[in-house]
Amino acid sequence: MAILSALATEVLIPVAGVIGIAFAVVQWVLVSQVKLSPAAAAAGGSKNGYGDYLIEEEEGLNDHNVVVKCAEIQNAISEGATSFLFTEYQYVGIFMSIFAVVIFLFLGSVEGFSTKSQPCTYSEGKFCKPALFTALFSTASFLLGAITSLVSGFLGMKIATYANARTTLEARKGVGKAFITAFRSGAVMGFLLASSGLVVLYITINVFKLYYGDDWEGLFESITGYGLGGSSMALFGRVGGGIYTKAADVGADLVGKVERNIPEDDPRNPAVIADNVGDNVGDIAGMGSDLFGSYAESSCAALVVASISSFGINHDFTGMCYPLLVSSVGIIVCLITTLFATDFFEIKAVKEIEPALKKQLIISTALMTVGIAIISWLALPAKFTIYNFGTQKEVSNWGLFFCVAIGLWAGLIIGFVTEYYTSNAYSPVQDVADSCRTGAATNVIFGLALGYKSVIIPIFAIAVSIYVSFSIAAMYGIAVAALGMLSTIATGLAIDAYGPISDNAGGIAEMAGMSHRIRERTDALDAAGNTTAAIGKGFAIGSAALVSLALFGAFVSRAGVQVVDVLSPKVFIGLIVGAMLPYWFSAMTMKSVGSAALKMVEEVRRQFNTIPGLMEGTGKPDYATCVKISTDASIKEMIPPGALVMLTPLIVGTLFGVETLSGVLAGALVSGVQIAISASNTGGAWDNAKKYIEAGASEHARTLGPKGSDCHKAAVIGDTIGDPLKDTSGPSLNILIKLMAVESLVFAPFFATHGGLLFKYL
Amino acid sequence: MAILSALATEVLIPVAGVIGIAFAVVQWVLVSQVKLSPAAAAAGGSKNGYGDYLIEEEEGLNDHNVVVKCAEIQNAISEGATSFLFTEYQYVGIFMSIFAVVIFLFLGSVEGFSTKSQPCTYSEGKFCKPALFTALFSTASFLLGAITSLVSGFLGMKIATYANARTTLEARKGVGKAFITAFRSGAVMGFLLASSGLVVLYITINVFKLYYGDDWEGLFESITGYGLGGSSMALFGRVGGGIYTKAADVGADLVGKVERNIPEDDPRNPAVIADNVGDNVGDIAGMGSDLFGSYAESSCAALVVASISSFGINHDFTGMCYPLLVSSVGIIVCLITTLFATDFFEIKAVKEIEPALKKQLIISTALMTVGIAIISWLALPAKFTIYNFGTQKEVSNWGLFFCVAIGLWAGLIIGFVTEYYTSNAYSPVQDVADSCRTGAATNVIFGLALGYKSVIIPIFAIAVSIYVSFSIAAMYGIAVAALGMLSTIATGLAIDAYGPISDNAGGIAEMAGMSHRIRERTDALDAAGNTTAAIGKGFAIGSAALVSLALFGAFVSRAGVQVVDVLSPKVFIGLIVGAMLPYWFSAMTMKSVGSAALKMVEEVRRQFNTIPGLMEGTGKPDYATCVKISTDASIKEMIPPGALVMLTPLIVGTLFGVETLSGVLAGALVSGVQIAISASNTGGAWDNAKKYIEAGASEHARTLGPKGSDCHKAAVIGDTIGDPLKDTSGPSLNILIKLMAVESLVFAPFFATHGGLLFKYL
Repeated sequence: MAILSALATEVLIPVAGVIGIAFAVVQWVLVSQVKLSPAAAAAGGSKNGYGDYLIEEEEGLNDHNVVVKCAEIQNAISEGATSFLFTEYQYVGIFMSIFAVVIFLFLGSVEGFSTKSQPCTYSEGKFCKPALFTALFSTASFLLGAITSLVSGFLGMKIATYANARTTLEARKGVGKAFITAFRSGAVMGFLLASSGLVVLYITINVFKLYYGDDWEGLFESITGYGLGGSSMALFGRVGGGIYTKAADVGADLVGKVERNIPEDDPRNPAVIADNVGDNVGDIAGMGSDLFGSYAESSCAALVVASISSFGINHDFTGMCYPLLVSSVGIIVCLITTLFATDFFEIKAVKEIEPALKKQLIISTALMTVGIAIISWLALPAKFTIYNFGTQKEVSNWGLFFCVAIGLWAGLIIGFVTEYYTSNAYSPVQDVADSCRTGAATNVIFGLALGYKSVIIPIFAIAVSIYVSFSIAAMYGIAVAALGMLSTIATGLAIDAYGPISDNAGGIAEMAGMSHRIRERTDALDAAGNTTAAIGKGFAIGSAALVSLALFGAFVSRAGVQVVDVLSPKVFIGLIVGAMLPYWFSAMTMKSVGSAALKMVEEVRRQFNTIPGLMEGTGKPDYATCVKISTDASIKEMIPPGALVMLTPLIVGTLFGVETLSGVLAGALVSGVQIAISASNTGGAWDNAKKYIEAGASEHARTLGPKGSDCHKAAVIGDTIGDPLKDTSGPSLNILIKLMAVESLVFAPFFATHGGLLFKYL
Repeated sequence: MAILSALATEVLIPVAGVIGIAFAVVQWVLVSQVKLSPAAAAAGGSKNGYGDYLIEEEEGLNDHNVVVKCAEIQNAISEGATSFLFTEYQYVGIFMSIFAVVIFLFLGSVEGFSTKSQPCTYSEGKFCKPALFTALFSTASFLLGAITSLVSGFLGMKIATYANARTTLEARKGVGKAFITAFRSGAVMGFLLASSGLVVLYITINVFKLYYGDDWEGLFESITGYGLGGSSMALFGRVGGGIYTKAADVGADLVGKVERNIPEDDPRNPAVIADNVGDNVGDIAGMGSDLFGSYAESSCAALVVASISSFGINHDFTGMCYPLLVSSVGIIVCLITTLFATDFFEIKAVKEIEPALKKQLIISTALMTVGIAIISWLALPAKFTIYNFGTQKEVSNWGLFFCVAIGLWAGLIIGFVTEYYTSNAYSPVQDVADSCRTGAATNVIFGLALGYKSVIIPIFAIAVSIYVSFSIAAMYGIAVAALGMLSTIATGLAIDAYGPISDNAGGIAEMAGMSHRIRERTDALDAAGNTTAAIGKGFAIGSAALVSLALFGAFVSRAGVQVVDVLSPKVFIGLIVGAMLPYWFSAMTMKSVGSAALKMVEEVRRQFNTIPGLMEGTGKPDYATCVKISTDASIKEMIPPGALVMLTPLIVGTLFGVETLSGVLAGALVSGVQIAISASNTGGAWDNAKKYIEAGASEHARTLGPKGSDCHKAAVIGDTIGDPLKDTSGPSLNILIKLMAVESLVFAPFFATHGGLLFKYL
């Protein structure tokens, strides 16, 4: 047995969760020290240093009007985001309720709604709880996952809209101050999500155990509903938010930057509020839900495999909870890592930002490696067995450490490759920028080629992780490798959320009419944010690939499939159709963004043409109509792609059976991961190529610029094309592959019993 | 046994081949009636009607100078193309020679270069020829395939450059005359390729039989080298030609149309000759080699499976030759179909062109269905058995008819879907054109979405074909389904080659300074040609998917793999890496086009800036330098992607073994087919969206135009981006998937014996 007792495990996990939440609260308090109300600032006097800092800055910045204006804009963004999310949640709520009923009915029907206990599938001689109750608990955990995901996204948005204006104000004091505010706010979100995900999952397991008792097979089967709920919510969040933000962004840019030649985020642009709202509902709320979903699913995948391995059969609670313990250690490690950015070192110049963020990745990975080693030694027996498609495979604790570690380090490699291909400090993005010399067409060709190329190393990294972790511990190895990649999720999310917060801070600076110097600082924060956002997406995709494979393995085990033979036509047609699904899905989301952007452009043009004095700054734009266009478009357009993803496993499983469904899952996985990586890197590269030309930081960059040059215009076109790729289609695809896998797993008992109707009757 | 005797089969196949070649010659003679030398035309007098027709036309057209100029330009294009192809062949020749040695050494080593006969793998109790001699014959058939492919491409180019100026001259007499000239020339190429492919393959089989005698297993195994040779050549042809043509095209457009505002194909543009040469070496020679490769491979795949089925074991020669008989019938059917376009009906107006080409597809498919039914009844026994991964499956002749027919009709469906998504007569392209209102960015977003969406139905069509044909006759069913799709290859190629010929005709009209009216006619021909080119690519991709799967099946059978289990990590890492390869390949080819285009742009700009009087038409541009840039770039840049495709199966098979290689093949297939379809349709749609705006044929189109408007400029950017997608990356990808499969098949005995070194020693 493990060194760590069951009781110690029972204590350690919630304690780590509580520490994480407490740390988030502390960060929040620190951010809230930046006062947005001039009165409060004045009352605080020189004590909080508010007044002192600004003495050295240019005049007018200390002006109370600026602060008031920032607060106003922040309010408008926060209200817009809140109102959109509430509308979104209403529609998604209806969908989720219907789906909950579907889950209950489908799973309940497995044993014909019988209330009698049945012999267990894996623990011979024992009796397991009836399918009807597992259906009920699965439905409950589904709803719980959805609600946790929803709350995570919502809180993230609230934090970000709380932090953006504060970052702007801090930028007056210098780039270092602004960085810390933005980063701390990101950390609030990161720790809150990571900790609450862990705590809720832990409580759910303990509550469900009251009913299931000894039947761990049923217990952890019903827990997978949690992952499904989290990912379903994430899908709608990503797609809806993605369409919202990019419709507004593309619309605002096309008229504002290209036609009217006014700067980004100019308050005269009627779509500017919608654009800034979009950053929060798409990039923040959507991404929060997404990574929460990955975390929940990888934990569920690991737990369900463990439950039919020796941990579950021997009722080794500590071993069983190993995935949760890894996450607990992750929270502590990330806490220490965060201090490196906020307390141990100080950012003094613009060029220190990116290295500081990169260091976060390296430090967290290095510390986590030690953390995993310790917890693997403490929590795992020296030898144990893992279920491997019908047989049990012997694994050592050091072997499992290796699985988690390889996932963790593969994540770092993916992060670095992403950085290399999307940061304008390296030649790939500089080449893309250079290709703007000959216009938008070559820019697009080079950008697409860059995205394709950026797939190579991440795929090899994923392939090696899969091979090694599978060889060591079968599908459990892959599940814990995914967990390893996600174990530093708190830091990952902090870095990731930092981007949109900085982006918004820049927007607010521009809208509040602050000086050029402030905008330069926020732009520098934002450029680093683009890269970190791309890194975050790289992590999300990499972990999604591993998670999906683990879920796929769990599904196959649960559905009783022994081999998924590509040479069987049932499997092969699934494979090729599955590989097509990401294209179908992307076609829908891209078209949605395009159509919504067209409407937005027309509205913005109409306002510029009909509202007197708008260009001169004397007329006031009608922000609300633009917000409404984005809201309506995203609510309407998120349903078809959402339905495609949610219904495909149900239809395929019911009509064609588990073999074809296995093919579909494998096909969607291997094809989707490529498009997701290339789309998000292409978009990130275009965005930073544009910023490279705008910033003019090198001699080469200056030959391409300045803003408004032909090169720059070509770069803006690339950036605009990249918007839906990197913020709508790309990041939604990793949810597609995870969600289909976890859904198949949840419905596996139903498909195994009633699936494949079409082949049965043909 | 079959109704058709072995002797009748021996006669029928070469007769059909000879008829096809004779028909091609007749068409050639008809095309050559259009005289390019003014003297000859004058000598012909009114007898050939040459003089009469032109009376009604505007003045100046009858001018001998125009004819002379057309002849001059044609010469320049033909010489440029010939010289490029010779350079290309030199480099490819070296590569091929080395590869031939590799084939011999690898295959010879299977039995340690022993010259003793060995027991057969499939025919128990018999002795088969030693591996050393099979290695020798495989090498010979590899070289033969490569040479046939090379000659096919070269002849195609010669025909096209012979026909282009003739089409221009005929356009003076009306659109119908021009159409017939272009179409007949396409037919020359189509029939020549289809027939010579058949005849060479037939002769090879008969010659090899002299050595192999009773050992049909070894005979048809060595014949697969023919497919490998054909496809290897096709790969270099497509990639090299694709880079050549698109570097020139993109370069010419970016400076000419975008910067200098001069029309397409204006003789003042220094890259114009390179551009027109490119159409012939890329679209014609490359495509000819490509479809020839598909045809050769699908025949080989079917033959190799048949040889280990009852046809081979019982030595049923007619049944064995069923794939060749289907192709023979196809030639006769296509011959009749061609007459519908050239003799039975006449094109009188522009709007009749597209329907006439579409009718070709429908007629050939309908007639061919009858043809297949007859030949299946005549050539096949009522019942026979087909090898199915270790067992023999019973199949009826009607079942096999159904397999071929479903492939044929799936091809038609793919053709129509492609037409729907790429012709500007339908809403998808019109929507893309409409999105140009808001600039190039939305145009690109809509175009990409269109391409993604266009994948859906073709994939379902392919999936259904695979499922049905596999269920009926295992991998043999899939191989003959592919053959069915390619059975109307003569018509398909005629339609396909017609496009670039018309494109060139337009270029010559512009360069020769002919009137606007002529150019309008050639433009109309060309717009229809864009759609048919896309349809041709659709066929090429659809058939490639089926062919690769059939080859994959043959490889797996030959390598002795029983299952390719996705759940095995060896297979799965192959699958995900295989799915990545098309991205890697596309990244290389796109980047190559981009870089070469950049160089071309710089050269064209330099010439406009430094050659006095060039813009005014008094200075003469230096065409040769532009030709050299394209040549150098394509020769240099075709090697890395070529090496990637050719070496991957060798490296994976040798180091990782047949299981991982199976995964790679399946992954590359299911991922590559999607990118190939979407890339070629996106490109076709952009091209025709631009033409839609230029032609201004509807009220909607006129609100977007005219040429030079902002909308049109946005459309030109889309068109330029689409160029490498539709003519370089997209069509090369189907070769990638086929070639890797056929190469694996050829090397299967080696991999089965010596493969998987890495896993053996780890």
